[in-house]
Amino acid sequence: MRQAGRYLPEYRAIREKTDFLTLCKTPELASEVTVQPIDIIGVDAAILFSDILVIPEAMGMHLEVLESKGPVFDAPIRSRGDLQRLNIDGVTERLNYIMDAIKMTKEKLNGRVPLIGFSGAPWTLATYMVEGKGSKSFDTVKSLIFTDPVAAHELLQILADAVVDYLNAKIRAGCDAVQIFDTWAGILSPGDLEEFSLKYIRYICERLETNDAPVIVFAKGVNDLSKLADLKCDVIGLDWTVDIGVARSEIGSTKALQGNLDPCVLFAPKEKIRLETERILERFGPGEGHVFNLGHGILPKTPVENTQYLVSCVKELSVRNHL
Amino acid sequence: MRQAGRYLPEYRAIREKTDFLTLCKTPELASEVTVQPIDIIGVDAAILFSDILVIPEAMGMHLEVLESKGPVFDAPIRSRGDLQRLNIDGVTERLNYIMDAIKMTKEKLNGRVPLIGFSGAPWTLATYMVEGKGSKSFDTVKSLIFTDPVAAHELLQILADAVVDYLNAKIRAGCDAVQIFDTWAGILSPGDLEEFSLKYIRYICERLETNDAPVIVFAKGVNDLSKLADLKCDVIGLDWTVDIGVARSEIGSTKALQGNLDPCVLFAPKEKIRLETERILERFGPGEGHVFNLGHGILPKTPVENTQYLVSCVKELSVRNHL
Repeated sequence: MRQAGRYLPEYRAIREKTDFLTLCKTPELASEVTVQPIDIIGVDAAILFSDILVIPEAMGMHLEVLESKGPVFDAPIRSRGDLQRLNIDGVTERLNYIMDAIKMTKEKLNGRVPLIGFSGAPWTLATYMVEGKGSKSFDTVKSLIFTDPVAAHELLQILADAVVDYLNAKIRAGCDAVQIFDTWAGILSPGDLEEFSLKYIRYICERLETNDAPVIVFAKGVNDLSKLADLKCDVIGLDWTVDIGVARSEIGSTKALQGNLDPCVLFAPKEKIRLETERILERFGPGEGHVFNLGHGILPKTPVENTQYLVSCVKELSVRNHL
Repeated sequence: MRQAGRYLPEYRAIREKTDFLTLCKTPELASEVTVQPIDIIGVDAAILFSDILVIPEAMGMHLEVLESKGPVFDAPIRSRGDLQRLNIDGVTERLNYIMDAIKMTKEKLNGRVPLIGFSGAPWTLATYMVEGKGSKSFDTVKSLIFTDPVAAHELLQILADAVVDYLNAKIRAGCDAVQIFDTWAGILSPGDLEEFSLKYIRYICERLETNDAPVIVFAKGVNDLSKLADLKCDVIGLDWTVDIGVARSEIGSTKALQGNLDPCVLFAPKEKIRLETERILERFGPGEGHVFNLGHGILPKTPVENTQYLVSCVKELSVRNHL
């Protein structure tokens, strides 16, 4: 999950000369940083370097990504009328730079490891588009969904259709798997979760032309994992607050599980990294269907040698689970 | 939960003349804002106006509370050596201004409604003391607990003992119930949650001299509520992401439940406020043991009339549950 990043000196060297969005939009550079972790860390798959907010940006919303503040839209969506401003035709065409980055990355990978592409889920994209920036309470986007649910659903449907197109294009361009991130699913009450988040993830999953490319859904912070069990996807992402053994029994064996390690464990001494790796593998238990991963994005200050050590631990210790 | 606040013009009038910490430390003013919501909103209990960080402040840590940035400690705890800086004797004595505020509030309330006092749980207090300010990833405090668990436990034990003393003093001063908040319990993996959070909440609950004052524990973001079922407390607080009916069956009938309404619902039209109130009461079902409340603190921009409407809905609709 988000393997490339500020923790790598090789990435920082490129970022010193290029702002974040330009990096996303320049296939030569995006493919270069995508491939970095494969050589440096030794992970088993590459994740295309990008950002979930390229979709609203391609709809005409002016986006700035500031390291100090995170992403900022200077003219957020606040009403049904604001939806008129969105340029919803030809979104995937305007994201063609990503398809070019996929093709270049596939060339650079040259078959060594598979490539994963991702998209934000409609609810998470909508939170940023309405709040205009990060939020603690998300009261602006929630005010919109409670006060004008029709406008909210219109926006979510626009986004769901765009995500279907976008992920299908990514698969066609060469992604071997796609992931749908709903980073802010966990801020919704059970009823609102179904109405404003899961409904649209379900819609997307049913419309992906996957050609057998696995589909990963990560709805962060969703307590009741059984709600994800019926999604038409292959893998469910888990953060670190759930027990992966319990998750396996709640979700059932029809889906693989991904994740579960607290990204902060990479700041711990080697013994703790090994212990936590062992614990997660044991809790998952024997058998196939576990994509070992962090439970969220890798943090900027993570020591590189600890990521390398983690990968070596996983490779060494997971053998037992597959005897 | 945190009833007084910026959403009330009467509170803002006082804050215009007084900074946040001075307000906490001036019994005449703290008691005045504590009583405001009783008259204005019509709630059934008062919550003493204060802040969880008065404990580290009384241990000698310099605290600033900035409206734009939240709380900031300018010299956070980063190592075992830093613990020497904490002045851990006589903490409750230095918090005597709070006991005075309790006595004044009880006089102002004059028996109309009970008074609830609160404390942060050791883990949440430690996160602020180590991070020095709010955080998204909490990598600094987690680095400490993973790298030097002995120091982390020393800090948590110091805090646990301080919280026991502090809450016992609050009960002696006249609080009719006490609440322990673990706002950041939900950022821990299941094993770390037990080791660094619940262990200390359990320690506190076993040592409170309650004189039958109910003890409320709110460990926000804890997915597996059965973990809280054996705590020696009377009420478990719930945020809005869980179904209160499911929570009731997981925790069992020996404890009452508090909370469950998304604070953002107070930004919704009246019909939605009524509908959500109805839904939560129905999900809880008939019988005693539900303290209707928000699932977290009331938000600064909440319209006052909506809080009044919520209280009237709860009073009207909850009658059915008690037939």
